[in-house]
Amino acid sequence: MTRVFNFSAGPAALPEPVLRQAAEEMLDWHGAGCGVMEMSHRGKEFTSIIEQAEADLRELMAIPRNYRVLFLQGGATQQFAQIPMNLLGGGSADYLVTGTWSQKAHKEAQRLAGALGGKVRLVGSTESCGFTRALRADELALDPDAAYVHLCTNETIHGVEVGDDDLPRSAAPLVGDMSSHILSRPTDVSRYGLIYAGAQKNIGPSGLVIVIVREDLLGRASPLTPTVMDYKVMADNGSMLNTPPTYSIYVAGLVFQWLKVQGGLAAMERRNVEKAALLYDFIDGSGFYRNMVEVRSRSRMNIPFLLPDDALNDAFLAGAKAAGLTQLKGHKSVGGMRASIYNAMPVEGVRALVEYMRGFAAQHG
Amino acid sequence: MTRVFNFSAGPAALPEPVLRQAAEEMLDWHGAGCGVMEMSHRGKEFTSIIEQAEADLRELMAIPRNYRVLFLQGGATQQFAQIPMNLLGGGSADYLVTGTWSQKAHKEAQRLAGALGGKVRLVGSTESCGFTRALRADELALDPDAAYVHLCTNETIHGVEVGDDDLPRSAAPLVGDMSSHILSRPTDVSRYGLIYAGAQKNIGPSGLVIVIVREDLLGRASPLTPTVMDYKVMADNGSMLNTPPTYSIYVAGLVFQWLKVQGGLAAMERRNVEKAALLYDFIDGSGFYRNMVEVRSRSRMNIPFLLPDDALNDAFLAGAKAAGLTQLKGHKSVGGMRASIYNAMPVEGVRALVEYMRGFAAQHG
Repeated sequence: MTRVFNFSAGPAALPEPVLRQAAEEMLDWHGAGCGVMEMSHRGKEFTSIIEQAEADLRELMAIPRNYRVLFLQGGATQQFAQIPMNLLGGGSADYLVTGTWSQKAHKEAQRLAGALGGKVRLVGSTESCGFTRALRADELALDPDAAYVHLCTNETIHGVEVGDDDLPRSAAPLVGDMSSHILSRPTDVSRYGLIYAGAQKNIGPSGLVIVIVREDLLGRASPLTPTVMDYKVMADNGSMLNTPPTYSIYVAGLVFQWLKVQGGLAAMERRNVEKAALLYDFIDGSGFYRNMVEVRSRSRMNIPFLLPDDALNDAFLAGAKAAGLTQLKGHKSVGGMRASIYNAMPVEGVRALVEYMRGFAAQHG
Repeated sequence: MTRVFNFSAGPAALPEPVLRQAAEEMLDWHGAGCGVMEMSHRGKEFTSIIEQAEADLRELMAIPRNYRVLFLQGGATQQFAQIPMNLLGGGSADYLVTGTWSQKAHKEAQRLAGALGGKVRLVGSTESCGFTRALRADELALDPDAAYVHLCTNETIHGVEVGDDDLPRSAAPLVGDMSSHILSRPTDVSRYGLIYAGAQKNIGPSGLVIVIVREDLLGRASPLTPTVMDYKVMADNGSMLNTPPTYSIYVAGLVFQWLKVQGGLAAMERRNVEKAALLYDFIDGSGFYRNMVEVRSRSRMNIPFLLPDDALNDAFLAGAKAAGLTQLKGHKSVGGMRASIYNAMPVEGVRALVEYMRGFAAQHG
């Protein structure tokens, strides 16, 4: 077995020790005589798994006690509907659009707003500059009475990340889609009303979405909301109104334990800063590759880059694959390449990528 | 490692060869250099996995070509909302209530019907007899113009199964919740407009729900439907509008391959008939245990039974666990015990249970 360096944007590489433990425990978890996939979600074994996962996530992110942690299904895309269903009420919500994902969230909310008796405002968009930067707080005219302000704090496709200094300043609750950079750095959860993240980048397997929601935002769901999508119902039932995605929660819990062993989010941030700097510094100094995102908004997790000529793309990808560097093809809406370097990507993987890129540039430059 | 005989109602025991293969492939699937959890859902490797899973399911169930197979999230409980959102239109739907699950489905549809501009009729219920039998076709006054007729063909909690002869006869599309007996016997899919099943009993891990829907029922979703819950959108996108629960789909695919090796659904039905007969015959002849369901409606998959005195329950469960027979506690709404004997439960497990029950009865009778 040879493991590659896998730069997939998601589902993405997981830490090897997590996968090894999952494989070892597949047929028998801790002497239970069955694997995690085969356990009743209401039994004491799985109860201990989900409770430990929540406790570890709370510790890692320093989640305040007045926030609930929900383990849900449907991905961030389902949240695009679930958020207005739960939070819009008869009010108005402000949306920031800085890439494909926040644009999808805005469109879905806009589509449903009328039926929900509310409305949605687009308060800023970077589409005209090709989604190459985040919006800064000082360029937004926010509605102080908004039901919430929605943004995507890391755009996976465009490689745009919002630094804490650039977060919208509003009396309204911030709702942040953190799917592709949650757990990559410490986050001040108290600045948000709701944080959500699909698991398949920095948390675990796809099929799980984590929602961290301030308690005062529970209980506002529209009667049009499917019961299983009502945050309050799910909070009241410990995410188990129905059978949750138990195996995904278990693997997420293993990832949380791995993160603690690594030193927690401050340690992960140091590594992620180092990894991103390695790659951006090389790109910027290469005279061959280009990243189009303004420096202040560059994502530490998803790094799109272009070759000087698209005709070189296939050769670049074939050579990369031969060197054990996979999933580097950029999203079709941006083109070129994209290296997703989440928590599970070791610095050795980024070094190997830079060395390959250097050699490719020398050969084709 | 000692594997127990696990009688969990779900998430439930999976075939050992499936778990062994999943464990072996955890870090490296077919030489890809990464595991299935780490693969882009749009790459050729995962595409081959989901396509093979669908092809195998189609073969096993002989699904006609004018039906689409969807791999979705949210469990059967989300379908309770999704079905009226997609199919009710401005019309009326008929619901049969024969246990906890069909009752939940009915309540959710009733709750949403007004907002959807339609209505829901309860056309029959066995609640007054404690949900101990199915409804027969000849006792139903169905609306020939109904948007659909909903039933649960196997009630997991009450152990009530609907035989093909008892299926409602209606010009309206039948919608069947088959969560706890799908793949346990051949099914004439063409008698249904839509079949759905949570995976965590006879298909694979929780977090996946399979929907098999006739093509003419696509494209009728209410504008209130979240995009990710619109069957037509999901059908048009091959279940991949967003990231699907990739690992659950992979394990389901392994189960489908295992079923083919076992001889398909006709072979499974023979085994399931044998297993259920072993247990029911013993219960009925024991003079000690009782199953409350009328013989015609007894489930082959979920077999609830009562001891003569509830005071014996704890001793029964403790002794069973010591004998390697787990998860036998009945649902609290029914009490007593429940043995779920899905496809993955070998006949040896049922024999071991019967032997244990025989000894327990001899000791306490």
